Amino acid sequence: VSAGSRKLRIDLCYDGTDFAGWQIQPGLRTVQGVLEERLGRLAGGRPIRVSGAGRTDAGVHARGQVAVAEGPFALDDAALAYRLRRLLPPDVRPLRVATAGSDFDARRSARSKTYVYRLDLSTSGSPFERRFALHVPRGFDASRVERAVERLVGRHDWSGFTASGCTIEDRVRTMTEARLEPCAPGLVRFVFTADGFLTHMARNLAGTLLEIARGRLGPERVSEVLRSRCRELAGPTAPARGLWLERVEY
Amino acid sequence: VSAGSRKLRIDLCYDGTDFAGWQIQPGLRTVQGVLEERLGRLAGGRPIRVSGAGRTDAGVHARGQVAVAEGPFALDDAALAYRLRRLLPPDVRPLRVATAGSDFDARRSARSKTYVYRLDLSTSGSPFERRFALHVPRGFDASRVERAVERLVGRHDWSGFTASGCTIEDRVRTMTEARLEPCAPGLVRFVFTADGFLTHMARNLAGTLLEIARGRLGPERVSEVLRSRCRELAGPTAPARGLWLERVEY
Repeated sequence: VSAGSRKLRIDLCYDGTDFAGWQIQPGLRTVQGVLEERLGRLAGGRPIRVSGAGRTDAGVHARGQVAVAEGPFALDDAALAYRLRRLLPPDVRPLRVATAGSDFDARRSARSKTYVYRLDLSTSGSPFERRFALHVPRGFDASRVERAVERLVGRHDWSGFTASGCTIEDRVRTMTEARLEPCAPGLVRFVFTADGFLTHMARNLAGTLLEIARGRLGPERVSEVLRSRCRELAGPTAPARGLWLERVEY
Repeated sequence: VSAGSRKLRIDLCYDGTDFAGWQIQPGLRTVQGVLEERLGRLAGGRPIRVSGAGRTDAGVHARGQVAVAEGPFALDDAALAYRLRRLLPPDVRPLRVATAGSDFDARRSARSKTYVYRLDLSTSGSPFERRFALHVPRGFDASRVERAVERLVGRHDWSGFTASGCTIEDRVRTMTEARLEPCAPGLVRFVFTADGFLTHMARNLAGTLLEIARGRLGPERVSEVLRSRCRELAGPTAPARGLWLERVEY
Protein backbone atom coordinates (compact mmCIF):
# COMPACT_ATOMS: atom_id res chain seq x y z
CA VAL A 1 0.00 0.00 0.00
CA SER A 2 1.58 3.26 -1.10
CA ALA A 3 1.35 6.41 1.01
CA GLY A 4 -2.10 8.00 1.04
CA SER A 5 -3.57 4.93 -0.58
CA ARG A 6 -6.15 2.59 0.92
CA LYS A 7 -7.99 -0.58 0.07
CA LEU A 8 -11.75 -0.54 -0.41
CA ARG A 9 -14.09 -3.50 -0.21
CA ILE A 10 -17.08 -2.83 -2.45
CA ASP A 11 -20.10 -5.15 -2.28
CA LEU A 12 -22.16 -4.85 -5.43
CA CYS A 13 -24.90 -6.36 -7.54
CA TYR A 14 -25.42 -6.27 -11.28
CA ASP A 15 -27.67 -7.33 -14.09
CA GLY A 16 -25.14 -9.10 -16.31
CA THR A 17 -27.28 -8.99 -19.48
CA ASP A 18 -25.53 -6.03 -21.06
CA PHE A 19 -22.01 -6.78 -19.84
CA ALA A 20 -19.36 -8.87 -21.57
CA GLY A 21 -18.73 -10.41 -18.15
CA TRP A 22 -16.70 -9.28 -15.15
CA GLN A 23 -13.19 -9.22 -16.55
CA ILE A 24 -11.82 -6.19 -18.35
CA GLN A 25 -11.49 -6.57 -22.14
CA PRO A 26 -10.46 -3.88 -24.60
CA GLY A 27 -13.43 -2.35 -26.40
CA LEU A 28 -16.03 -4.29 -24.43
CA ARG A 29 -18.32 -3.18 -21.62
CA THR A 30 -17.37 -5.21 -18.56
CA VAL A 31 -18.20 -4.78 -14.88
CA GLN A 32 -14.54 -4.52 -13.90
CA GLY A 33 -13.96 -1.97 -16.68
CA VAL A 34 -16.88 0.22 -15.63
CA LEU A 35 -15.80 0.05 -11.96
CA GLU A 36 -12.18 0.93 -12.71
CA GLU A 37 -13.20 3.87 -14.86
CA ARG A 38 -15.64 5.30 -12.27
CA LEU A 39 -13.31 4.68 -9.32
CA GLY A 40 -10.52 6.38 -11.25
CA ARG A 41 -12.63 9.53 -11.29
CA LEU A 42 -12.94 9.30 -7.49
CA ALA A 43 -9.16 8.94 -7.16
CA GLY A 44 -8.32 12.16 -8.94
CA GLY A 45 -7.97 10.49 -12.32
CA ARG A 46 -5.35 7.99 -11.14
CA PRO A 47 -5.71 4.54 -12.79
CA ILE A 48 -7.39 2.13 -10.35
CA ARG A 49 -7.14 -1.66 -10.44
CA VAL A 50 -10.18 -3.58 -9.25
CA SER A 51 -10.26 -7.30 -8.50
CA GLY A 52 -13.38 -9.35 -7.89
CA ALA A 53 -14.24 -12.42 -5.84
CA GLY A 54 -15.71 -14.17 -8.88
CA ARG A 55 -14.96 -13.56 -12.55
CA THR A 56 -18.51 -13.96 -13.82
CA ASP A 57 -19.04 -14.77 -17.53
CA ALA A 58 -20.89 -12.55 -19.99
CA GLY A 59 -24.59 -12.50 -19.09
CA VAL A 60 -24.12 -13.85 -15.55
CA HIS A 61 -25.67 -11.77 -12.76
CA ALA A 62 -24.48 -10.98 -9.26
CA ARG A 63 -26.47 -10.25 -6.16
CA GLY A 64 -23.43 -10.25 -3.89
CA GLN A 65 -20.17 -9.76 -5.80
CA VAL A 66 -17.26 -8.42 -3.75
CA ALA A 67 -14.65 -6.16 -5.35
CA VAL A 68 -11.44 -4.71 -3.97
CA ALA A 69 -9.93 -1.45 -5.20
CA GLU A 70 -6.78 0.24 -4.03
CA GLY A 71 -6.00 3.88 -4.57
CA PRO A 72 -5.51 7.40 -3.17
CA PHE A 73 -9.18 8.03 -2.35
CA ALA A 74 -9.61 11.33 -0.54
CA LEU A 75 -13.24 10.78 0.50
CA ASP A 76 -14.38 8.69 3.46
CA ASP A 77 -16.28 5.42 2.92
CA ALA A 78 -19.77 6.93 3.19
CA ALA A 79 -18.98 9.72 0.76
CA LEU A 80 -17.39 7.26 -1.66
CA ALA A 81 -20.50 5.06 -1.48
CA TYR A 82 -22.68 8.07 -2.23
CA ARG A 83 -20.54 9.24 -5.16
CA LEU A 84 -20.28 5.71 -6.55
CA ARG A 85 -24.06 5.28 -6.45
CA ARG A 86 -24.35 8.41 -8.55
CA LEU A 87 -21.56 7.52 -10.97
CA LEU A 88 -22.40 3.88 -11.69
CA PRO A 89 -25.00 2.97 -14.34
CA PRO A 90 -28.37 1.47 -13.30
CA ASP A 91 -27.33 -2.10 -14.11
CA VAL A 92 -24.45 -2.19 -11.62
CA ARG A 93 -25.15 -0.94 -8.11
CA PRO A 94 -22.89 -0.67 -5.08
CA LEU A 95 -24.41 -2.10 -1.91
CA ARG A 96 -21.66 -1.22 0.58
CA VAL A 97 -18.27 0.48 0.57
CA ALA A 98 -15.84 -0.14 3.44
CA THR A 99 -12.12 0.30 4.06
CA ALA A 100 -10.48 -3.13 4.08
CA GLY A 101 -7.28 -4.35 5.72
CA SER A 102 -4.19 -4.26 3.51
CA ASP A 103 -4.10 -8.08 3.36
CA PHE A 104 -7.70 -8.42 2.22
CA ASP A 105 -8.00 -10.12 -1.18
CA ALA A 106 -11.44 -10.40 -2.80
CA ARG A 107 -10.77 -13.88 -4.17
CA ARG A 108 -8.11 -15.45 -1.94
CA SER A 109 -9.63 -14.28 1.34
CA ALA A 110 -13.03 -15.79 0.44
CA ARG A 111 -14.02 -18.77 2.57
CA SER A 112 -16.87 -19.79 0.26
CA LYS A 113 -18.97 -18.64 -2.65
CA THR A 114 -22.58 -19.40 -3.44
CA TYR A 115 -23.84 -19.56 -7.01
CA VAL A 116 -27.52 -19.90 -7.83
CA TYR A 117 -29.01 -21.10 -11.10
CA ARG A 118 -32.64 -20.05 -11.68
CA LEU A 119 -35.16 -21.96 -13.79
CA ASP A 120 -38.53 -20.72 -14.98
CA LEU A 121 -40.76 -23.81 -15.17
CA SER A 122 -43.91 -22.01 -16.38
CA THR A 123 -45.48 -23.10 -19.67
CA SER A 124 -45.21 -19.73 -21.42
CA GLY A 125 -42.08 -18.32 -19.79
CA SER A 126 -42.35 -15.20 -17.68
CA PRO A 127 -41.50 -11.99 -19.59
CA PHE A 128 -40.13 -10.63 -16.29
CA GLU A 129 -37.66 -13.49 -15.87
CA ARG A 130 -36.34 -13.80 -19.42
CA ARG A 131 -33.06 -12.07 -18.47
CA PHE A 132 -32.76 -13.78 -15.11
CA ALA A 133 -33.72 -17.43 -15.50
CA LEU A 134 -33.59 -20.24 -18.03
CA HIS A 135 -37.00 -21.22 -19.35
CA VAL A 136 -37.65 -24.96 -18.99
CA PRO A 137 -41.29 -25.37 -20.02
CA ARG A 138 -41.58 -29.13 -19.64
CA GLY A 139 -40.06 -32.39 -18.52
CA PHE A 140 -38.45 -31.12 -15.32
CA ASP A 141 -38.52 -33.96 -12.79
CA ALA A 142 -37.48 -32.46 -9.45
CA SER A 143 -37.15 -35.82 -7.68
CA ARG A 144 -34.48 -36.91 -10.18
CA VAL A 145 -32.52 -33.71 -9.48
CA GLU A 146 -32.76 -34.25 -5.76
CA ARG A 147 -31.20 -37.68 -6.08
CA ALA A 148 -28.36 -36.12 -8.13
CA VAL A 149 -27.49 -32.96 -6.18
CA GLU A 150 -26.78 -34.78 -2.94
CA ARG A 151 -23.96 -36.59 -4.75
CA LEU A 152 -22.17 -33.27 -5.31
CA VAL A 153 -21.57 -32.42 -1.66
CA GLY A 154 -18.04 -33.16 -0.47
CA ARG A 155 -14.42 -32.81 -1.51
CA HIS A 156 -13.96 -33.77 -5.17
CA ASP A 157 -11.81 -33.22 -8.22
CA TRP A 158 -14.13 -31.18 -10.46
CA SER A 159 -12.21 -31.65 -13.74
CA GLY A 160 -15.24 -33.30 -15.36
CA PHE A 161 -17.33 -30.19 -14.75
CA THR A 162 -14.65 -27.75 -15.88
CA ALA A 163 -14.26 -26.00 -19.22
CA SER A 164 -11.55 -27.62 -21.35
CA GLY A 165 -9.77 -24.24 -21.53
CA CYS A 166 -9.38 -24.01 -17.75
CA THR A 167 -5.72 -23.47 -16.84
CA ILE A 168 -6.06 -24.11 -13.11
CA GLU A 169 -4.05 -27.23 -12.17
CA ASP A 170 -5.49 -28.10 -8.77
CA ARG A 171 -9.13 -28.88 -9.40
CA VAL A 172 -10.02 -30.19 -5.98
CA ARG A 173 -12.70 -28.12 -4.26
CA THR A 174 -15.13 -28.79 -1.44
CA MET A 175 -18.85 -28.33 -2.08
CA THR A 176 -20.69 -27.74 1.20
CA GLU A 177 -24.17 -27.14 -0.19
CA ALA A 178 -25.93 -28.38 -3.34
CA ARG A 179 -29.70 -28.38 -3.55
CA LEU A 180 -32.82 -27.59 -5.50
CA GLU A 181 -35.39 -25.23 -3.98
CA PRO A 182 -38.46 -23.24 -5.03
CA CYS A 183 -37.74 -19.50 -5.17
CA ALA A 184 -40.92 -17.84 -6.52
CA PRO A 185 -44.20 -19.02 -8.08
CA GLY A 186 -43.23 -21.15 -11.07
CA LEU A 187 -39.50 -20.75 -10.39
CA VAL A 188 -36.92 -23.06 -8.84
CA ARG A 189 -33.20 -22.73 -8.37
CA PHE A 190 -30.10 -24.80 -7.90
CA VAL A 191 -27.91 -23.57 -5.04
CA PHE A 192 -24.20 -24.43 -4.98
CA THR A 193 -21.82 -23.38 -2.20
CA ALA A 194 -18.14 -24.31 -2.37
CA ASP A 195 -14.74 -23.04 -1.31
CA GLY A 196 -14.03 -22.33 -4.97
CA PHE A 197 -15.45 -22.71 -8.47
CA LEU A 198 -13.56 -23.51 -11.67
CA THR A 199 -14.22 -22.10 -15.15
CA HIS A 200 -17.84 -22.86 -16.18
CA MET A 201 -18.21 -25.23 -13.23
CA ALA A 202 -21.55 -23.83 -11.99
CA ARG A 203 -22.99 -23.71 -15.52
CA ASN A 204 -21.79 -27.24 -16.30
CA LEU A 205 -23.34 -28.48 -13.07
CA ALA A 206 -26.62 -26.77 -13.99
CA GLY A 207 -26.49 -28.18 -17.54
CA THR A 208 -25.88 -31.70 -16.23
CA LEU A 209 -28.66 -31.45 -13.64
CA LEU A 210 -31.00 -30.27 -16.39
CA GLU A 211 -30.22 -33.35 -18.48
CA ILE A 212 -30.92 -35.45 -15.41
CA ALA A 213 -34.18 -33.57 -14.71
CA ARG A 214 -35.33 -34.29 -18.27
CA GLY A 215 -34.48 -37.97 -17.98
CA ARG A 216 -31.67 -37.89 -20.55
CA LEU A 217 -29.06 -38.80 -17.91
CA GLY A 218 -29.43 -40.79 -14.71
CA PRO A 219 -28.88 -39.17 -11.27
CA GLU A 220 -25.81 -41.37 -10.76
CA ARG A 221 -24.15 -39.66 -13.75
CA VAL A 222 -22.99 -36.88 -11.43
CA SER A 223 -20.82 -39.37 -9.52
CA GLU A 224 -19.50 -40.85 -12.75
CA VAL A 225 -18.36 -37.42 -13.98
CA LEU A 226 -16.62 -36.75 -10.67
CA ARG A 227 -14.94 -40.15 -10.61
CA SER A 228 -13.89 -40.22 -14.28
CA ARG A 229 -13.01 -36.47 -14.42
CA CYS A 230 -14.28 -36.73 -17.98
CA ARG A 231 -15.98 -33.59 -19.35
CA GLU A 232 -17.65 -35.61 -22.13
CA LEU A 233 -19.77 -37.50 -19.60
CA ALA A 234 -21.30 -34.27 -18.22
CA GLY A 235 -24.16 -32.28 -19.74
CA PRO A 236 -23.76 -29.10 -21.81
CA THR A 237 -22.87 -25.72 -20.33
CA ALA A 238 -26.18 -24.10 -19.28
CA PRO A 239 -26.84 -20.56 -20.64
CA ALA A 240 -25.32 -17.70 -18.66
CA ARG A 241 -28.56 -15.81 -18.01
CA GLY A 242 -29.79 -18.26 -15.34
CA LEU A 243 -26.61 -17.97 -13.25
CA TRP A 244 -26.12 -15.66 -10.27
CA LEU A 245 -23.17 -15.06 -8.00
CA GLU A 246 -25.32 -14.92 -4.90
CA ARG A 247 -22.94 -14.47 -2.00
CA VAL A 248 -19.28 -14.53 -0.96
CA GLU A 249 -18.36 -15.43 2.62
CA TYR A 250 -15.11 -14.34 4.27
CA VAL B 1 -70.35 -13.42 -34.93
CA SER B 2 -70.00 -14.35 -38.57
CA ALA B 3 -70.16 -17.98 -39.72
CA GLY B 4 -67.06 -20.01 -38.79
CA SER B 5 -65.87 -17.22 -36.52
CA ARG B 6 -65.43 -17.43 -32.77
CA LYS B 7 -64.42 -15.23 -29.87
CA LEU B 8 -61.26 -15.97 -27.92
CA ARG B 9 -60.40 -14.81 -24.44
CA ILE B 10 -56.63 -14.54 -24.14
CA ASP B 11 -55.07 -13.96 -20.72
CA LEU B 12 -51.58 -12.56 -21.08
CA CYS B 13 -48.69 -10.86 -19.34
CA TYR B 14 -46.11 -8.48 -20.73
CA ASP B 15 -43.04 -6.45 -19.91
CA GLY B 16 -44.20 -3.03 -21.12
CA THR B 17 -40.70 -1.53 -21.32
CA ASP B 18 -40.28 -1.90 -25.06
CA PHE B 19 -43.90 -1.26 -26.04
CA ALA B 20 -45.51 2.08 -26.88
CA GLY B 21 -48.42 0.91 -24.71
CA TRP B 22 -51.38 -1.35 -25.37
CA GLN B 23 -53.23 0.56 -28.05
CA ILE B 24 -52.41 0.16 -31.72
CA GLN B 25 -50.57 3.12 -33.27
CA PRO B 26 -49.17 3.32 -36.80
CA GLY B 27 -45.44 2.72 -36.91
CA LEU B 28 -45.12 1.93 -33.22
CA ARG B 29 -44.69 -1.38 -31.45
CA THR B 30 -47.76 -1.88 -29.27
CA VAL B 31 -49.13 -4.96 -27.50
CA GLN B 32 -52.43 -4.78 -29.38
CA GLY B 33 -50.56 -4.38 -32.68
CA VAL B 34 -48.31 -7.40 -32.04
CA LEU B 35 -51.31 -9.52 -30.97
CA GLU B 36 -53.40 -8.56 -34.00
CA GLU B 37 -50.57 -9.32 -36.37
CA ARG B 38 -49.79 -12.73 -34.84
CA LEU B 39 -53.45 -13.73 -34.47
CA GLY B 40 -54.00 -12.74 -38.09
CA ARG B 41 -51.47 -15.39 -39.09
CA LEU B 42 -53.49 -17.95 -37.11
CA ALA B 43 -56.69 -16.88 -38.90
CA GLY B 44 -55.40 -17.56 -42.38
CA GLY B 45 -54.19 -14.02 -42.90
CA ARG B 46 -57.57 -12.42 -42.19
CA PRO B 47 -57.29 -9.10 -40.29
CA ILE B 48 -58.08 -9.65 -36.60
CA ARG B 49 -59.27 -6.99 -34.15
CA VAL B 50 -58.20 -7.39 -30.55
CA SER B 51 -59.61 -5.45 -27.61
CA GLY B 52 -58.15 -5.38 -24.11
CA ALA B 53 -59.53 -5.01 -20.60
CA GLY B 54 -57.13 -2.15 -19.85
CA ARG B 55 -55.41 0.18 -22.28
CA THR B 56 -52.06 0.33 -20.52
CA ASP B 57 -49.74 3.28 -21.24
CA ALA B 58 -46.29 2.99 -22.77
CA GLY B 59 -43.95 1.30 -20.28
CA VAL B 60 -46.75 -0.12 -18.09
CA HIS B 61 -46.59 -3.87 -17.42
CA ALA B 62 -49.31 -6.48 -17.15
CA ARG B 63 -49.36 -9.67 -15.17
CA GLY B 64 -53.03 -10.39 -15.95
CA GLN B 65 -54.26 -8.47 -19.00
CA VAL B 66 -57.31 -9.96 -20.73
CA ALA B 67 -57.75 -9.61 -24.49
CA VAL B 68 -60.61 -10.64 -26.76
CA ALA B 69 -60.14 -11.55 -30.42
CA GLU B 70 -62.77 -12.61 -32.91
CA GLY B 71 -62.02 -14.44 -36.12
CA PRO B 72 -62.22 -17.61 -38.21
CA PHE B 73 -59.70 -19.61 -36.19
CA ALA B 74 -59.50 -23.19 -37.45
CA LEU B 75 -57.47 -24.56 -34.52
CA ASP B 76 -58.89 -25.52 -31.14
CA ASP B 77 -58.04 -23.53 -27.99
CA ALA B 78 -55.10 -25.67 -26.89
CA ALA B 79 -53.53 -25.64 -30.35
CA LEU B 80 -54.02 -21.88 -30.59
CA ALA B 81 -52.36 -21.42 -27.19
CA TYR B 82 -49.43 -23.53 -28.35
CA ARG B 83 -49.04 -21.65 -31.64
CA LEU B 84 -49.43 -18.29 -29.96
CA ARG B 85 -46.70 -19.13 -27.42
CA ARG B 86 -44.40 -19.85 -30.34
CA LEU B 87 -45.38 -16.78 -32.37
CA LEU B 88 -45.35 -14.10 -29.68
CA PRO B 89 -42.07 -12.40 -28.69
CA PRO B 90 -40.52 -13.06 -25.26
CA ASP B 91 -41.84 -9.84 -23.73
CA VAL B 92 -45.50 -10.68 -24.26
CA ARG B 93 -46.65 -14.13 -23.20
CA PRO B 94 -50.06 -15.80 -23.40
CA LEU B 95 -51.13 -17.46 -20.16
CA ARG B 96 -54.43 -19.00 -21.28
CA VAL B 97 -56.54 -19.15 -24.44
CA ALA B 98 -60.25 -20.05 -24.18
CA THR B 99 -63.32 -19.73 -26.37
CA ALA B 100 -65.56 -17.00 -24.93
CA GLY B 101 -69.29 -16.41 -25.22
CA SER B 102 -70.37 -14.09 -28.03
CA ASP B 103 -71.43 -11.42 -25.50
CA PHE B 104 -68.09 -11.41 -23.68
CA ASP B 105 -66.38 -8.00 -23.79
CA ALA B 106 -62.87 -7.66 -22.32
CA ARG B 107 -63.57 -4.21 -20.89
CA ARG B 108 -67.33 -3.97 -20.36
CA SER B 109 -67.75 -7.45 -18.88
CA ALA B 110 -65.06 -6.77 -16.27
CA ARG B 111 -66.34 -6.54 -12.71
CA SER B 112 -63.12 -5.06 -11.33
CA LYS B 113 -59.50 -4.41 -12.18
CA THR B 114 -56.50 -4.38 -9.90
CA TYR B 115 -53.51 -2.16 -10.60
CA VAL B 116 -50.31 -2.39 -8.60
CA TYR B 117 -47.60 0.25 -8.33
CA ARG B 118 -44.20 -1.06 -7.20
CA LEU B 119 -41.58 0.96 -5.32
CA ASP B 120 -37.95 0.01 -4.75
CA LEU B 121 -37.01 1.58 -1.40
CA SER B 122 -33.40 0.34 -1.35
CA THR B 123 -30.61 2.90 -1.09
CA SER B 124 -28.84 1.95 -4.33
CA GLY B 125 -31.80 0.76 -6.41
CA SER B 126 -31.93 -2.86 -7.50
CA PRO B 127 -30.58 -3.44 -11.04
CA PHE B 128 -33.15 -6.24 -11.35
CA GLU B 129 -36.09 -3.93 -10.63
CA ARG B 130 -35.11 -0.91 -12.71
CA ARG B 131 -37.70 -1.79 -15.38
CA PHE B 132 -40.37 -2.90 -12.94
CA ALA B 133 -40.42 -0.47 -10.03
CA LEU B 134 -39.85 3.18 -9.25
CA HIS B 135 -36.74 3.78 -7.17
CA VAL B 136 -37.49 5.86 -4.06
CA PRO B 137 -34.22 5.82 -2.12
CA ARG B 138 -35.26 7.98 0.83
CA GLY B 139 -37.99 9.81 2.69
CA PHE B 140 -40.71 7.20 2.26
CA ASP B 141 -42.92 7.32 5.36
CA ALA B 142 -45.23 4.30 5.14
CA SER B 143 -47.45 5.42 8.04
CA ARG B 144 -48.35 8.61 6.18
CA VAL B 145 -49.36 6.56 3.13
CA GLU B 146 -51.48 4.25 5.26
CA ARG B 147 -53.45 7.21 6.59
CA ALA B 148 -54.01 8.40 3.00
CA VAL B 149 -54.92 5.19 1.14
CA GLU B 150 -57.85 4.36 3.40
CA ARG B 151 -59.48 7.60 2.23
CA LEU B 152 -59.58 6.29 -1.35
CA VAL B 153 -61.92 3.36 -0.72
CA GLY B 154 -65.53 4.02 -1.74
CA ARG B 155 -67.60 5.53 -4.52
CA HIS B 156 -66.09 8.82 -5.70
CA ASP B 157 -65.82 11.18 -8.66
CA TRP B 158 -62.17 10.70 -9.70
CA SER B 159 -61.86 13.81 -11.90
CA GLY B 160 -59.10 15.19 -9.70
CA PHE B 161 -56.96 12.10 -10.36
CA THR B 162 -57.67 12.01 -14.10
CA ALA B 163 -55.55 13.26 -16.98
CA SER B 164 -56.85 16.56 -18.35
CA GLY B 165 -57.17 14.95 -21.78
CA CYS B 166 -59.59 12.28 -20.54
CA THR B 167 -62.77 12.33 -22.64
CA ILE B 168 -64.87 10.09 -20.39
CA GLU B 169 -67.80 12.10 -18.99
CA ASP B 170 -68.92 9.91 -16.10
CA ARG B 171 -65.99 9.83 -13.71
CA VAL B 172 -67.64 8.09 -10.81
CA ARG B 173 -66.01 4.76 -9.93
CA THR B 174 -65.97 2.58 -6.85
CA MET B 175 -62.63 1.67 -5.30
CA THR B 176 -62.94 -1.49 -3.23
CA GLU B 177 -59.31 -1.91 -2.23
CA ALA B 178 -56.49 0.59 -1.71
CA ARG B 179 -53.49 -0.33 0.37
CA LEU B 180 -49.74 -0.37 0.80
CA GLU B 181 -48.00 -3.71 1.31
CA PRO B 182 -44.49 -5.17 1.26
CA CYS B 183 -43.93 -7.36 -1.82
CA ALA B 184 -40.25 -8.42 -1.70
CA PRO B 185 -37.14 -7.49 0.34
CA GLY B 186 -36.76 -3.71 -0.04
CA LEU B 187 -39.89 -3.41 -2.18
CA VAL B 188 -43.41 -2.22 -1.40
CA ARG B 189 -46.44 -1.73 -3.60
CA PHE B 190 -49.65 0.20 -3.75
CA VAL B 191 -52.64 -1.99 -4.63
CA PHE B 192 -55.76 -0.40 -6.16
CA THR B 193 -58.90 -2.36 -7.05
CA ALA B 194 -61.88 -0.59 -8.62
CA ASP B 195 -64.76 -1.23 -11.01
CA GLY B 196 -62.98 1.05 -13.48
CA PHE B 197 -59.96 3.31 -13.92
CA LEU B 198 -59.79 6.60 -15.85
CA THR B 199 -56.86 7.87 -17.94
CA HIS B 200 -53.69 8.05 -15.76
CA MET B 201 -55.77 7.49 -12.63
CA ALA B 202 -53.56 4.78 -11.13
CA ARG B 203 -50.37 6.73 -11.90
CA ASN B 204 -51.82 9.95 -10.49
CA LEU B 205 -52.85 8.12 -7.34
CA ALA B 206 -49.34 6.71 -7.03
CA GLY B 207 -47.78 10.13 -7.67
CA THR B 208 -49.97 11.75 -5.01
CA LEU B 209 -49.28 9.00 -2.46
CA LEU B 210 -45.55 9.46 -3.12
CA GLU B 211 -45.81 13.18 -2.34
CA ILE B 212 -47.64 12.26 0.85
CA ALA B 213 -45.03 9.61 1.74
CA ARG B 214 -42.27 12.19 1.36
CA GLY B 215 -44.12 14.71 3.54
CA ARG B 216 -44.75 17.22 0.75
CA LEU B 217 -48.53 16.75 1.00
CA GLY B 218 -50.67 15.73 3.99
CA PRO B 219 -52.63 12.45 4.03
CA GLU B 220 -55.90 14.43 3.97
CA ARG B 221 -54.95 15.82 0.55
CA VAL B 222 -56.42 12.67 -1.03
CA SER B 223 -59.89 13.63 0.25
CA GLU B 224 -59.44 17.23 -0.88
CA VAL B 225 -58.62 16.10 -4.44
CA LEU B 226 -61.69 13.85 -4.49
CA ARG B 227 -63.98 16.56 -3.09
CA SER B 228 -62.66 19.42 -5.24
CA ARG B 229 -62.21 17.28 -8.41
CA CYS B 230 -59.23 19.54 -9.02
CA ARG B 231 -56.27 17.91 -10.80
CA GLU B 232 -53.93 20.72 -9.64
CA LEU B 233 -54.31 19.65 -6.00
CA ALA B 234 -53.04 16.11 -6.74
CA GLY B 235 -49.42 15.04 -7.13
CA PRO B 236 -47.65 14.46 -10.44
CA THR B 237 -48.23 11.43 -12.67
CA ALA B 238 -45.87 8.71 -11.43
CA PRO B 239 -43.58 7.10 -14.07
CA ALA B 240 -45.10 4.24 -16.08
CA ARG B 241 -42.47 1.65 -15.23
CA GLY B 242 -43.76 1.08 -11.67
CA LEU B 243 -47.33 0.33 -12.80
CA TRP B 244 -48.77 -3.13 -13.40
CA LEU B 245 -52.20 -4.27 -14.54
CA GLU B 246 -52.29 -7.11 -12.05
CA ARG B 247 -55.67 -8.76 -12.49
CA VAL B 248 -59.09 -8.40 -14.14
CA GLU B 249 -62.13 -10.00 -12.51
CA TYR B 250 -65.29 -10.96 -14.44
